[in-house]
Amino acid sequence: MIGVAQIGCYIPEKKLSNLDLLEKFKTDEAFVRDKIGVVQRARKEKDEKASDLCIKAFENLLTKQNIRSEEIECCVVVTQNPDFNIPHTSAIVHGALDLPESCASFDISLGCSGYVYALSVVTAFMQANGMNRGLIFTADPYSDIVDENDKNTALIFGDAATVTLLDADAKLKPLGFDFGTKGSGFKNLISQDKLYMNGRAVFNFTASTIPDSIHKLLDKLKLNKEQVDKWYFHQGSKYIVDTITKRAGLDKEQVIFDMYEYGNTISSSIPLLLSKDILHFQKGQKIALSGFGVGLSWASAILEQS
Amino acid sequence: MIGVAQIGCYIPEKKLSNLDLLEKFKTDEAFVRDKIGVVQRARKEKDEKASDLCIKAFENLLTKQNIRSEEIECCVVVTQNPDFNIPHTSAIVHGALDLPESCASFDISLGCSGYVYALSVVTAFMQANGMNRGLIFTADPYSDIVDENDKNTALIFGDAATVTLLDADAKLKPLGFDFGTKGSGFKNLISQDKLYMNGRAVFNFTASTIPDSIHKLLDKLKLNKEQVDKWYFHQGSKYIVDTITKRAGLDKEQVIFDMYEYGNTISSSIPLLLSKDILHFQKGQKIALSGFGVGLSWASAILEQS
Repeated sequence: MIGVAQIGCYIPEKKLSNLDLLEKFKTDEAFVRDKIGVVQRARKEKDEKASDLCIKAFENLLTKQNIRSEEIECCVVVTQNPDFNIPHTSAIVHGALDLPESCASFDISLGCSGYVYALSVVTAFMQANGMNRGLIFTADPYSDIVDENDKNTALIFGDAATVTLLDADAKLKPLGFDFGTKGSGFKNLISQDKLYMNGRAVFNFTASTIPDSIHKLLDKLKLNKEQVDKWYFHQGSKYIVDTITKRAGLDKEQVIFDMYEYGNTISSSIPLLLSKDILHFQKGQKIALSGFGVGLSWASAILEQS
Repeated sequence: MIGVAQIGCYIPEKKLSNLDLLEKFKTDEAFVRDKIGVVQRARKEKDEKASDLCIKAFENLLTKQNIRSEEIECCVVVTQNPDFNIPHTSAIVHGALDLPESCASFDISLGCSGYVYALSVVTAFMQANGMNRGLIFTADPYSDIVDENDKNTALIFGDAATVTLLDADAKLKPLGFDFGTKGSGFKNLISQDKLYMNGRAVFNFTASTIPDSIHKLLDKLKLNKEQVDKWYFHQGSKYIVDTITKRAGLDKEQVIFDMYEYGNTISSSIPLLLSKDILHFQKGQKIALSGFGVGLSWASAILEQS
């Protein structure tokens, strides 16, 4: 069984402060800190593309783990802000990292549920094809599409990228997943020229759907929530993570929250959190992940350290 | 094991004739018929989007097979011309077809190798998650991005969509796959404002890579090419299919070719061909599929009727 071995991250050094925008948006520090949960947003350079962010995340991975390019059998990029629509960004990353020609590459188009989906899609794909080592990249640079005058989105999103090394020998393995889609609500989070988000609709969707998804998954795996040690939710906002925590009846101490210094980084939010803990799980420990947003879409997973 | 149960197709009724363009591009009928292999190109209406084409393919599927929406556990769209970049087109299709909320949905971004990739990705994903019925849509309307004055692309591409019903009880099942990527060549097939294709580079890549991929896959499965009954290659052009046939030493009679009346339909080309034969395979018969293009990317598969 394929598991998560290590995670590399890239958060741009440049930060834009929400505290500078309090007057512009007629709001206050308590709101940006305690409701949104974002004090500053990480911001890539204008000409940096998704593939550039992926490559920087890979460079970070190399500082944590020795990897030979020729061992990589699978290269997947999760993005909805690709370099181009044609070709897929994973091909560009494949070329830049000089991965072997036998390496399978494709992009998955999903937003904030993308990382959790990709953990299932890519581990299953690798397993079915007898692959031992693969990479899942997440990179969704929303700074290219956010309208800086739109209060509903301008204070929230940050740029980042991650790369997760999947390995047949890794000890953190998925036990099971729950997926769902509410396609009838797709217009609530959409980018035509610029990003539009109906914040209230997305919030209501999440607050009702995610606690259900967690309980459904626990039931399926015959677990109760006390058997889960840590909860990693997509960092949509502090208010949504707090609301899920309350509605699902979780212990606040076990729910990870950390987006103050870089913002909501879409599919990168969960692996950014996980990267800090990845080497510290104890045998038998279980963790839960849950992503939700664009689609509307959600995905939850429980992983166990073996 | 998940297999291919049925395929629904949509080819727009409107056709544009290449014979009307012979003078414009200073070419002749022999070239468009015998080299390109496209006499007319299927053309969607301007305001039709990828999701609209998917829905029409699904309507065609319903004329062939009774399907209840609530049975569908997985909805995947393969496209590089999505309705929007955010959300994924599969969410829009999910909403339009009123699929259940428990249905997993995501897009795969791949070009001409996309259908073969998706057969592996989606069957593995369904298998790993205990799903029994799923849909793979292909829809890549190149008419939105082709420059009608570019001889390298204007005579080739047609619009179409397909939907493949995957089912745990279906008898046509994948035996194995071969995948590959040559990301260093990604600039040879790219869309920024409009589509650009370095036809010679893509041809040379394909002519050398695909015969190797086929032989590699046959070796892996301990089969020889005489044990394969039919060959379904991506219909890039007549010249490329003929070249692969020759270089791989295949019997021309067993290599399917049919794009004269609608053109190169990207990820829909293989399922369009397969849809005609899907109910006529005999027990034990083996077929091969191979897609190649954008990325540069390729994927080959061998399927067997059980």
